[in-house]
Amino acid sequence: MSQRNGWHGWVGMSSVLLCLAIGLIGCRRGEIADEGGDAARGTPVAGLPEDANQIIQERGLTPDDVAAAVATYTPSGKMDEYIMFASGGHSGQVLVIGLPSMRLLRSIAVFTPEPWQGAGFGVRESPFHTEGDPPIGRKHLTWADTHHPALSETNGDYDGQFLFINDKANARLAVIDLRDFETKQWVVNPVVNNNHGSTMVTPNTDYVVEGSQYAVPLGLKYAPLDKYQEQYRGLMTFWKFDRAKGRIDPAQSFAIELPPYWQDLADSGKIASDGWVFQNSFNTEMATGGIESGNPPFEAGASQRDMDYLHAINYRAAEKVVADGKCAEINGFRVIPLATAVSEGVLYFAAEPKSPHGVDVCPCGKHIVVSGKLDPHVTVYHIDKIKEAVAKKDFEGNDPFGVPILRFDAVKEAQVEIGLGPLHTQFDAQGYAYTSLFLDNAVARWSMGDCKYKAPEGAWKLVGTTPVHYNVGHISAAEGDTVDPDGRFLVALNKWSVDRFVNTGPLLPQNLQLLDTSRPGDRFPVIYDMPLGNAEPHYAQIMKADKLKTWEVYPDVGWDPLSQVKSETAPMKGAIRRNGDAVEVDMIAIRSHFEPEHVQVRQGQKVKWTITNMERTIDATHGFCIPSYNIEASLEPGETVTIEFVAEKEGVFPFYCLEFCSALHLEMVGYLLVEPASN
Amino acid sequence: MSQRNGWHGWVGMSSVLLCLAIGLIGCRRGEIADEGGDAARGTPVAGLPEDANQIIQERGLTPDDVAAAVATYTPSGKMDEYIMFASGGHSGQVLVIGLPSMRLLRSIAVFTPEPWQGAGFGVRESPFHTEGDPPIGRKHLTWADTHHPALSETNGDYDGQFLFINDKANARLAVIDLRDFETKQWVVNPVVNNNHGSTMVTPNTDYVVEGSQYAVPLGLKYAPLDKYQEQYRGLMTFWKFDRAKGRIDPAQSFAIELPPYWQDLADSGKIASDGWVFQNSFNTEMATGGIESGNPPFEAGASQRDMDYLHAINYRAAEKVVADGKCAEINGFRVIPLATAVSEGVLYFAAEPKSPHGVDVCPCGKHIVVSGKLDPHVTVYHIDKIKEAVAKKDFEGNDPFGVPILRFDAVKEAQVEIGLGPLHTQFDAQGYAYTSLFLDNAVARWSMGDCKYKAPEGAWKLVGTTPVHYNVGHISAAEGDTVDPDGRFLVALNKWSVDRFVNTGPLLPQNLQLLDTSRPGDRFPVIYDMPLGNAEPHYAQIMKADKLKTWEVYPDVGWDPLSQVKSETAPMKGAIRRNGDAVEVDMIAIRSHFEPEHVQVRQGQKVKWTITNMERTIDATHGFCIPSYNIEASLEPGETVTIEFVAEKEGVFPFYCLEFCSALHLEMVGYLLVEPASN
Repeated sequence: MSQRNGWHGWVGMSSVLLCLAIGLIGCRRGEIADEGGDAARGTPVAGLPEDANQIIQERGLTPDDVAAAVATYTPSGKMDEYIMFASGGHSGQVLVIGLPSMRLLRSIAVFTPEPWQGAGFGVRESPFHTEGDPPIGRKHLTWADTHHPALSETNGDYDGQFLFINDKANARLAVIDLRDFETKQWVVNPVVNNNHGSTMVTPNTDYVVEGSQYAVPLGLKYAPLDKYQEQYRGLMTFWKFDRAKGRIDPAQSFAIELPPYWQDLADSGKIASDGWVFQNSFNTEMATGGIESGNPPFEAGASQRDMDYLHAINYRAAEKVVADGKCAEINGFRVIPLATAVSEGVLYFAAEPKSPHGVDVCPCGKHIVVSGKLDPHVTVYHIDKIKEAVAKKDFEGNDPFGVPILRFDAVKEAQVEIGLGPLHTQFDAQGYAYTSLFLDNAVARWSMGDCKYKAPEGAWKLVGTTPVHYNVGHISAAEGDTVDPDGRFLVALNKWSVDRFVNTGPLLPQNLQLLDTSRPGDRFPVIYDMPLGNAEPHYAQIMKADKLKTWEVYPDVGWDPLSQVKSETAPMKGAIRRNGDAVEVDMIAIRSHFEPEHVQVRQGQKVKWTITNMERTIDATHGFCIPSYNIEASLEPGETVTIEFVAEKEGVFPFYCLEFCSALHLEMVGYLLVEPASN
Repeated sequence: MSQRNGWHGWVGMSSVLLCLAIGLIGCRRGEIADEGGDAARGTPVAGLPEDANQIIQERGLTPDDVAAAVATYTPSGKMDEYIMFASGGHSGQVLVIGLPSMRLLRSIAVFTPEPWQGAGFGVRESPFHTEGDPPIGRKHLTWADTHHPALSETNGDYDGQFLFINDKANARLAVIDLRDFETKQWVVNPVVNNNHGSTMVTPNTDYVVEGSQYAVPLGLKYAPLDKYQEQYRGLMTFWKFDRAKGRIDPAQSFAIELPPYWQDLADSGKIASDGWVFQNSFNTEMATGGIESGNPPFEAGASQRDMDYLHAINYRAAEKVVADGKCAEINGFRVIPLATAVSEGVLYFAAEPKSPHGVDVCPCGKHIVVSGKLDPHVTVYHIDKIKEAVAKKDFEGNDPFGVPILRFDAVKEAQVEIGLGPLHTQFDAQGYAYTSLFLDNAVARWSMGDCKYKAPEGAWKLVGTTPVHYNVGHISAAEGDTVDPDGRFLVALNKWSVDRFVNTGPLLPQNLQLLDTSRPGDRFPVIYDMPLGNAEPHYAQIMKADKLKTWEVYPDVGWDPLSQVKSETAPMKGAIRRNGDAVEVDMIAIRSHFEPEHVQVRQGQKVKWTITNMERTIDATHGFCIPSYNIEASLEPGETVTIEFVAEKEGVFPFYCLEFCSALHLEMVGYLLVEPASN
């Protein structure tokens, strides 16, 4: 086809895909709007309080609505049974949601400064603005695109200790401590500048896995696009996690160079597949786009081949390569070159259907489920077959970079046709797998084969589908990606909400729908719609709430949340020290006053201001702010923070408590007086 | 009492208050934990689907729980009937919540940059970082302490067009357009640097009212605290609102100088009291604190007098003073001096009980309800009596600044004893008023006298109280501060949640509790607990959702949301223009590609990058980001944005769509290539 035809030359080729993607909402809204049996609406229910029946009639609730209401409504003071950690997408945060009530319990400031939490407005506990100095070259980033939260695991099961989350936009990772739900560490990838197959943890959280997405020159260098195949690469990074310190240790971490395909999601093996990580890929066409020059746009150029490559990575073998010193260094980081990964048996490929998105390992670890989003099947691989094909060198050739391609029929266990646009798969305790169908706006339930649990319908069968509203991305089942799924609940993270909620403007909320998956068979209905209008979650994990060992208040007065120890320098009483132009303010906060209440400085002086919240009562948080100076903090009971600034602005600035802490909260105030240098 | 005794000398005096404030949670938790009739839990309900009854038993729901569940549960695709706009406190945002489901529909970025909305990361629609340049002296503020949202009104009723919100910390106001729920204007007070009695609107939104809180030297000057009574002042600002332009017009606005008390909340008169604004005050002791020097802390020093001053401001008289040119100018802003306000009959005081917090005008406008938070009564004033006392000069003297004090018994209509720590009052359509009781952890329902509606219990009686959990601040009833309240629902904005939700760390969520106030008498129960873990709402307004006239998509392709018109320069096709070191990129975004896909520049070049989202389908939002450059945007259907930056970093930067917009969303990407200057 002539390049001169330009984009119009490509319409035919991808029009089916575009029609599916664009036309779908329009054609489904009608159908879905009618569901729910209007005939049954408002039927009185004997035995309910009279006013309840009156309400059921007034509100036109069906018996199924009532059943859903009692399944999700959580009375005052009763606790949710599960807790869901959802990424915030380009909000840069993590959202914590209770199940079955689907209430947003809190957000966690991870990459974006958030003043309600006192994160990033002058307080040292929040180094949001200073991560990623050169040579890494990502300085002063104040937002992120968080995608995949990963709870820390012990023996492949959630242990409730830590949460990890990635920044796709800037190839960063964060570590959150679930004792106080605060971010403790930010690491920046020094080799590539974007990720996606991230974060996933190995079964005992030895490593936090970060897979890149869009190929770039390694080491953050410049290279023109006509050098794409020679100089652009993908990367899989294994960040070593030190559980005792609660920190990632970059010095003990390493990465593996990959071909310049666009690697997508990844999952760690477990039990039978322990020691392996699986990742899929798209754009194995190595299309470089350029619609403005008459080239096919990426959406067409990257969708031409029928098969892409599942990556099977033996990271135990990779550890040995690193231990033997066979890696290169890029910006001081250890990287196994692609050729070495091949020669040392670290990296194998297997064909996978068209433009895969999700790869998910089953509870027993034997099955690896891949969804090609432009193919109506899920494809299931078996780890024993992969290992056997590796041992027998049962290859169907090599890719252009010499990576051996395992023979598809040798490693494939099953293919199950489930519907259009399959993306991601989770598991339950009834022998079912669930896969999101983006184009069908549905969640498919299908039966696993020889796995930890057996479904009554037998192996590898589509059991049923439930419509969701609309454009479902990830799904999350209760502990549904662990060695021991709970089942019962599944959440569909729908990207579009369209006609589900009161219109609050052209920027619509997402729709997180709760499905009741507790019973076998083809009925697993939607029982709650949760609008989410402050973030765009991609993936989420759902954990039993009783696994948390969270603090109610900090363990001691003078606690430093960043280092998680008592600070030796935390003030226990008020004081002001002056040394030339340096002023040190020691402050305490307790209902309902600060001490000191007057802070007098001269314009231009350097101020180091440390505050301790002396409270030991749960929820007795005090806020603190210095207006006009953009300084703000949230001090939980026992917490101490330090703020440093130059008193550049002359004038009188009331500092005050930001949390309504007592009946005399408004009186919890003081004056910062900055005398002009000219006086 | 000797100043040398220091703070310990003051413990006795305020120990009762401190005990009340601090001890309360501890002593109430026991009681409240037992409520709800455990005996009745799990009773099966005949007529419900069997699985529903099984769930009721498994979850131990009482008949009242089931009634609350059906009253609040909103099935998929059914719309909430009311929409609540809540301030975000020190999150700096506004939260939009649906009733009765109590679901967070979305947040609105007002003062704090928020990337999910593309607000404040390089896009001109979000001047978050550049408001308040000198002489105003509040530059680069990236957070705020929002307190009191005010919906625009026509004839004293919500009209659904605009929302206003204040920043207490920095004396700023913002204007939000409810056609797209985006912030359009930020104004900064040039005379004082903090506010609280703000925002309230006059009955036809002629003015947005901003009352200061902590006295400071006017004009943002420096003055020592020993000059407090001479040089520190309060201020009431009347910002003129131009409804046609949807903007505040500072040139047509003015302010009134007030004594250096700490003015608190304000409310506009309506109907009978149209033309007046009422504001209360505390610290009429003019205490200046200084606990570190042995002085009483503010919490004690500001709580000594039994009465403070209700401010009655005749703003029609003030307008005449301004028209007659009798005002001063401070930093270019028109200010009526205190002496002039007195001599021209603009300002009157009336005694009000100890440390008032809320002042609220009833639906007919005759009654002004004040709560002294250290007094168990609400005090009700009558506008006719105020006008008569003004006319007759029925004063009980003047304050130290010459402000006439209306005789208390001449202006007082009633006092009703309702409980401990009364704060704020709202109204319904049954003749009831509701007042939050901070110290009692309850909401009181009491009957109005000769008002728009008559309660069956007769005038000025406490009818009942409902416990809330815990430390309730503001309350909000459906249209409960308008001339035409709806009743039915009331939300208690509780500051502490303590034992209501799964523990998510030492920083607890707030608890917004929904009360069913639809029936007369003493029963108006809590029917829903909504945890709020991303903000600290102070006040909220609840409006009938059908009053909104919100856009589903922007009216035209190429829409500029800041000016709310189609931009003449919005790209309709891709192009790159180069002029020396200036590079202009015209980009379009449509499922599922950007055009152009390649942007090649040299390091150090100045880039002006304009993007139009060509979509006309509801919810077809595209995101855009340039990783490593901290540039990020959200483009709703039809929206155009412009980003300007210098290409300082060399390298290869994939820019991509941030919203999962189609099955080929991951392919909606391009490369920014920054060739090193050294090449």
